[in-house]
Amino acid sequence: MDIYEQSLELHKKNHGKLETTSKVRLDSPQALSCAYSPGVGAVSRAISESKESVYDYTLKGRTVLVVSDGSAILGLGNLGPEASLPVMEGKCAIFKEFAGMDAFPLVLDTQDTEKIIETIKHIAPTFGGINLEDISAPRCFEIEERLRTELDIPVMHDDQWGAATVTLAAILGACTLRDITPADARIVLSGIGAAGVATARLLIASGFTHITFVDSKGIIHAGRNDLTKEKKELLNASTAPDRTGDLSTALCGAHVFIGLSVPNTVTQDMIHTMAEHPILFTLANPIPEIMPEDAHTAGAYIVATGRSDYKNQINNSLVFPGVFKAMLELRHVQFETGLFVHIAEAIATYQKNNLSPDTIIPSMFDSAVVDIVYKSTHEYYGK
Amino acid sequence: MDIYEQSLELHKKNHGKLETTSKVRLDSPQALSCAYSPGVGAVSRAISESKESVYDYTLKGRTVLVVSDGSAILGLGNLGPEASLPVMEGKCAIFKEFAGMDAFPLVLDTQDTEKIIETIKHIAPTFGGINLEDISAPRCFEIEERLRTELDIPVMHDDQWGAATVTLAAILGACTLRDITPADARIVLSGIGAAGVATARLLIASGFTHITFVDSKGIIHAGRNDLTKEKKELLNASTAPDRTGDLSTALCGAHVFIGLSVPNTVTQDMIHTMAEHPILFTLANPIPEIMPEDAHTAGAYIVATGRSDYKNQINNSLVFPGVFKAMLELRHVQFETGLFVHIAEAIATYQKNNLSPDTIIPSMFDSAVVDIVYKSTHEYYGK
Repeated sequence: MDIYEQSLELHKKNHGKLETTSKVRLDSPQALSCAYSPGVGAVSRAISESKESVYDYTLKGRTVLVVSDGSAILGLGNLGPEASLPVMEGKCAIFKEFAGMDAFPLVLDTQDTEKIIETIKHIAPTFGGINLEDISAPRCFEIEERLRTELDIPVMHDDQWGAATVTLAAILGACTLRDITPADARIVLSGIGAAGVATARLLIASGFTHITFVDSKGIIHAGRNDLTKEKKELLNASTAPDRTGDLSTALCGAHVFIGLSVPNTVTQDMIHTMAEHPILFTLANPIPEIMPEDAHTAGAYIVATGRSDYKNQINNSLVFPGVFKAMLELRHVQFETGLFVHIAEAIATYQKNNLSPDTIIPSMFDSAVVDIVYKSTHEYYGK
Repeated sequence: MDIYEQSLELHKKNHGKLETTSKVRLDSPQALSCAYSPGVGAVSRAISESKESVYDYTLKGRTVLVVSDGSAILGLGNLGPEASLPVMEGKCAIFKEFAGMDAFPLVLDTQDTEKIIETIKHIAPTFGGINLEDISAPRCFEIEERLRTELDIPVMHDDQWGAATVTLAAILGACTLRDITPADARIVLSGIGAAGVATARLLIASGFTHITFVDSKGIIHAGRNDLTKEKKELLNASTAPDRTGDLSTALCGAHVFIGLSVPNTVTQDMIHTMAEHPILFTLANPIPEIMPEDAHTAGAYIVATGRSDYKNQINNSLVFPGVFKAMLELRHVQFETGLFVHIAEAIATYQKNNLSPDTIIPSMFDSAVVDIVYKSTHEYYGK
């Protein structure tokens, strides 16, 4: 049985993965009177008198909403809410396994930006934080931005910031090994969707400003009239020379390729034109822009992918459990770019002790990482 | 420490009651590849090809949404969403304890009927069924009715039907002991809110049609011009003579009083005017319409309350765990009046072996009841 058949069997046998359980038994009239009516009436009254105490008396203070509209499921595209439910359950299971946190998966039967925002706002009182997941660009940008402004709990679209933070941490490691400074690094970033935009924003905030952006139409340049708000913003922030052409033009002389695009779009010939000892992040999943073995044969010094079966896996599970754990404890703080940069630097600093071309980033099973992310989040807001 | 202090301590210590846990460990790359990416991609694809399989592959087929707007919390009134969260968590814990089912609590930051309906519709794909809770009348009637029509999963407002079904089961037991038939029973029903309307509907469907209805303005009669749609419907269905007056007028000669109203509204003098060996269901909670000891001193033959510290507790926990368990297995069937009558009759039949004035209804800790409710639901839809 391959992994797909195993997965189908696992899900069918257990009817999914996530379950709800009670921390208290309700097996006697006394227990029930305490946990439920009439005792719980005192808890309701206490919360109505001091709304903030809902964090202490209920699951709110330890529970994250994992929510999707099913519009961009893994690498599979827009398969709708039901099809995204097993992915959201998996994400919630990771919250529990890696950070001991509670999380609940919700899938929405609408893909309308305003309705998504309104629905999430209406159900927000239950949760301490919101993890948006698998929502397609560009709607994901507005949904996240609006919810951050309009809610008093932290909101993060993990496809953007989880991926971007781990990528930045790994780029910091790779550039240390390759001995290039952020200011000198010539970067090509291909794929300007959710993860691409966030990755670019974090790179720029960290001083990696020499970035040539490429989308499905080729290099993003000032002469194009089809650019979204986000693409214009990134182009303006870049210090790379404005030029036209396709991915192969862009890659000439580049130190670093970051692909968050589609499978099989980088060739060995393209790698030959890059700067010496090139660094390739081929993060299209599950089929990367070029297979790691082919990249290495063509001279790549460091290759990272999104896959667990190759070295240097860029996996957002390194970040979201620890950061949400801290954010829920901090209460009423909001995610911001500086936080993700701070976390990426903390991960990169930790990995310095173990840095090699095959270990530019810690494994997600390195149990120290949740704590590093958790502590650096507290540190950031303690500033 | 009294029960209220104990409850506050319990909730604070555990940060609420409900938690989410994973049925599978994610402690190795292999486990993660199977439960999450890339393996879960096969599950998403399978669901997108056959939407019905979401019941097999995810938590949907075993998970109930417990949702409130906090507008009618226990006997406390409209304290808002946060204050209702501990009650909803408790309800979810009861689902687990009594029927092994999964349930998740959501509280809504809107009390607008249309917005509640729209929000619940948008999040419905995650759930196998919906338990509406603590939503005030008359909005609860429209919300339930609309959701039943517009969703393909079962929807039940437990404050209506849970309470009504257990009350009917207990009335059947009480009337058997008192040797009155449904057609002969003269009933006074005081309090025409969520539970009152549903109880009346079930009584009428079971042949108890001689009912005088009383609300805060007195007896409901044809000459009143302040009647809601529901009150008019009940008045039209009743075979009791149309008359005017207050609760004391209504109670003269009645066999049965059912109070779903407010504390301390029945006096011993009123009980003296009722028929011989009167039956009193004083269900206002936690303070009943008259205390059981006072009712008995005044001649009451049978007294039932909503409280766990008196005999004959009318507790909707007898019904909702078992009925939802069956409904989720049946899939795509909708709750209807006939089902609740059928369940009430099944509970009453079971209790015949143990019937006495102090045991007109089984205890909620009688573990046979969940199964009786569960089986009678399957039986009803197998008709």
